Amino acid sequence: MTVRVGIVDTTFARVDMAKYAIEELRNNEPSVIIERITVPGFKNTPWAAKQLINKGVDAVMVLGWIGPSLTDKITYAVTSMGLIMLQIEYDKPIVDVTIHEDEANNEGELFNIAVDRTRKHARNLILMLRGELTKWAGMGLRQGRPDAGPIM
Amino acid sequence: MTVRVGIVDTTFARVDMAKYAIEELRNNEPSVIIERITVPGFKNTPWAAKQLINKGVDAVMVLGWIGPSLTDKITYAVTSMGLIMLQIEYDKPIVDVTIHEDEANNEGELFNIAVDRTRKHARNLILMLRGELTKWAGMGLRQGRPDAGPIM
Amino acid sequence: MTVRVGIVDTTFARVDMAKYAIEELRNNEPSVIIERITVPGFKNTPWAAKQLINKGVDAVMVLGWIGPSLTDKITYAVTSMGLIMLQIEYDKPIVDVTIHEDEANNEGELFNIAVDRTRKHARNLILMLRGELTKWAGMGLRQGRPDAGPIM
Amino acid sequence: MTVRVGIVDTTFARVDMAKYAIEELRNNEPSVIIERITVPGFKNTPWAAKQLINKGVDAVMVLGWIGPSLTDKITYAVTSMGLIMLQIEYDKPIVDVTIHEDEANNEGELFNIAVDRTRKHARNLILMLRGELTKWAGMGLRQGRPDAGPIM
Amino acid sequence: MTVRVGIVDTTFARVDMAKYAIEELRNNEPSVIIERITVPGFKNTPWAAKQLINKGVDAVMVLGWIGPSLTDKITYAVTSMGLIMLQIEYDKPIVDVTIHEDEANNEGELFNIAVDRTRKHARNLILMLRGELTKWAGMGLRQGRPDAGPIM
Repeated sequence: MTVRVGIVDTTFARVDMAKYAIEELRNNEPSVIIERITVPGFKNTPWAAKQLINKGVDAVMVLGWIGPSLTDKITYAVTSMGLIMLQIEYDKPIVDVTIHEDEANNEGELFNIAVDRTRKHARNLILMLRGELTKWAGMGLRQGRPDAGPIM
Repeated sequence: MTVRVGIVDTTFARVDMAKYAIEELRNNEPSVIIERITVPGFKNTPWAAKQLINKGVDAVMVLGWIGPSLTDKITYAVTSMGLIMLQIEYDKPIVDVTIHEDEANNEGELFNIAVDRTRKHARNLILMLRGELTKWAGMGLRQGRPDAGPIM
Repeated sequence: MTVRVGIVDTTFARVDMAKYAIEELRNNEPSVIIERITVPGFKNTPWAAKQLINKGVDAVMVLGWIGPSLTDKITYAVTSMGLIMLQIEYDKPIVDVTIHEDEANNEGELFNIAVDRTRKHARNLILMLRGELTKWAGMGLRQGRPDAGPIM
Repeated sequence: MTVRVGIVDTTFARVDMAKYAIEELRNNEPSVIIERITVPGFKNTPWAAKQLINKGVDAVMVLGWIGPSLTDKITYAVTSMGLIMLQIEYDKPIVDVTIHEDEANNEGELFNIAVDRTRKHARNLILMLRGELTKWAGMGLRQGRPDAGPIM
Repeated sequence: MTVRVGIVDTTFARVDMAKYAIEELRNNEPSVIIERITVPGFKNTPWAAKQLINKGVDAVMVLGWIGPSLTDKITYAVTSMGLIMLQIEYDKPIVDVTIHEDEANNEGELFNIAVDRTRKHARNLILMLRGELTKWAGMGLRQGRPDAGPIM
C-alpha cells in the first residue's frame, strides 16, 4: 500500500521540523510519498492543507510554531478550528504538531521538544492510518515530553 | 432494536475509558454494536467521529482527556466546536466525556472521575437515543461527581 | 395561526425550566404546540434543536444551565456558536435561556433568575415570531433581573 | 439607485439606536428603503439579519448592546462570528454597531458613544456600498469617540 | 504569468499600509494586477475579501489594525476565523497583516512595524504563490521585527 502524506510547514518556525517528519514517516512506511507546501505562518496552514487534500494525499501533517502572546494564542485557536473543519469536511486526518515558544525555558529545550513531538506524531499518523493505535488507548502517551503513562 | 455506537478514544488519556464505556453500554442495551477508533489526542476526535458516522453508527461517544494549560483549553474549545458541527450536520448525537487533568487533586481522584463520568454518560447516551431523559430534566444530574440535585 | 415551538432542556439544570416555559408559551399563544427533547447537558442542545427543526417547529427554546468553571464557559461559547449556526442555516429563531451558576449568591436567587428569565424569554419568543418587539427596541429590557430601562 | 438596508436591533439595548441609524442613512442616501427586525438580544441578530437578507436587502446594520460580564463577551464573540459567516455566504455586508456597557464611565457617556457610533457607521455603510471609502484608508477613523488620525 | 492580488484595507488603520503593499507587490511581480476594497474595520474584511475572490483574484492581502481592548482581541479572533474559512472554501490564500496597537511603545515604532510587516508579507505572498518558500522553512522569519532565526 502506498501512502501519500502532505506536509505543511512554515518560515516562522525556528526548527526545520519537516526534515524529522519526513525521516520518521519513511522509517515507518517506506512506500510513503510526500507532498510539501511551506507558508509564512500557522494561519495559512489550513489553506495549504486543503491544497494538498485537493492533490489527493491520504493525510496531512501540519508543523506549526506558536509565539507566546495572546495574539499568538488566538491564532492557534482559530487555525486549529480550520484544521478540524477540513478533517470533517474532507475525511482526511490532519495531525498538527504545534510548538509553543513559551513551553520551554531555553532554545535547546525547545529544539528537543520540536524534534521529539514531530517524530512521535509522524509515527502516530502512520499507525492511525493503519488503525493500529487502539492498543495504546488510555496509556497516557505524550509527544515532546516523556509519557505520563496510565493511572493504575 | 439494534443500536450501533461509535467510540472514539485517545492514547493521550491516562485511563482506558473505552473499557468502562463498552461495559456500561452493553449493560444498558445488550444488543449494542460497538465501532471504535483510537487517535493520538482530542483534536483528531472529530475526524474519527466522522469516520464512524460514515460507517453508519447511530451515535458516538468521544472519550477525551485534556491537559491543564491554556493551549489544552483552546484545544478543548475548538474540538468541542467540531463535535457540535458534526452533530448538526449529520443528525447524530455525540456525547463527549472529557476529563480535565486540573479538576482533581491527585491521580486516584482523576481515575474515579474518569470512570464515573464515562459510565454515567454511556447510560445517558442510551436513554437519550430512547427519548427517556425527560423525567430527569432539571434534576441537577452530574457526571464524575455527586449529583447537585434540583433546587427546591 | 398555530405555532409549533420546540423545547430543549437538560438533566444538568437544577430547575425544571421547561415547566415555566410551557406555561408561559401557552398563556401568550394558546394554540401553541410543544415538542420537547431532554439531553444530558448544554453541549447536546444544538443536536436536539436540529432534531426539532427537522420535525417542523417554527422556533426553539433552549434551556441551559452553565457551571462556574472555565471549562463550563468554553462549553457555553461553542454551544452558543452551534445554536447561531443552526439559526442561520435553517431560518428558525432559537432563544436560549442560559442560567450561569456563578451569577447568583445562593440557590434561592438562582431559582428566581431561572424562572424569571425563562418566562420573559418565552414571551419574547412569541412576540418575536409575531414581529411585535420593535416597540420595545432600545428599552433596556432584562431577563432574570429587573429591566435596566432606556438611558434618557 | 435605490438602496435597501436592513436594520436589526434589540430590546436589550438602552438607546434606540435605530432612530439615529435611519436618520443618518436617509441623510446620506435619500432613496434608501429600510427593513427592520427587533430581537431580544445580540444572540438573535444573525437570525434576524438572515431574514432581512432573504427579503433582498443590499446590506444590514446590526445595532448591538453588550453587557460587562465574561458571559456577555462570549456572546459578543460567537454572535460576531455568525455575522461574519453570513457576510461570506451571502455576499452582503453587515456593519455591526456594538456598544459595550463597560466602555464608558456613566450613562451620559454611553449614550453619546451609542449615537456617535451609530451615525458614523450608517455613513460608512453607504460609502462602503458606493466603494468610496478608499480615500480614508489608513486615516485612523474611529466611531463612538474622536478619530485617532493617521500616524505621520 | 499575470498575478491578480486583492487588497483589503480599513479606515480604522492609522497607516496607509496598502501603499507599501502595492509597491512591494509590484517590485516582486511587475505583472501584478491589484484590486482593492476599503472597509471601516477589520470585521468587514472577510466580506471584502470574498468580493475580491468573486472578481477572480488569485490571492488576497488583508491589512488590519487591531485596538488594545478585549473587544478588539475578540474581533481579531472571529475575523481571522472568517478569513481561514474563506481560504478553505475558495482555495485562495489570504495573507493577513495585522498590526496590534499594544505591540509597540509609541507611534513611531508602530509605524515601522506596520511598514515592515506589510512589505515582508507582500513578498511572502508572491513567493507562496510561486511555491518558493520551502527554502526558508524553519528559519524563524519574522515580519514587523527582526528575524528570530533558526535554533542551531
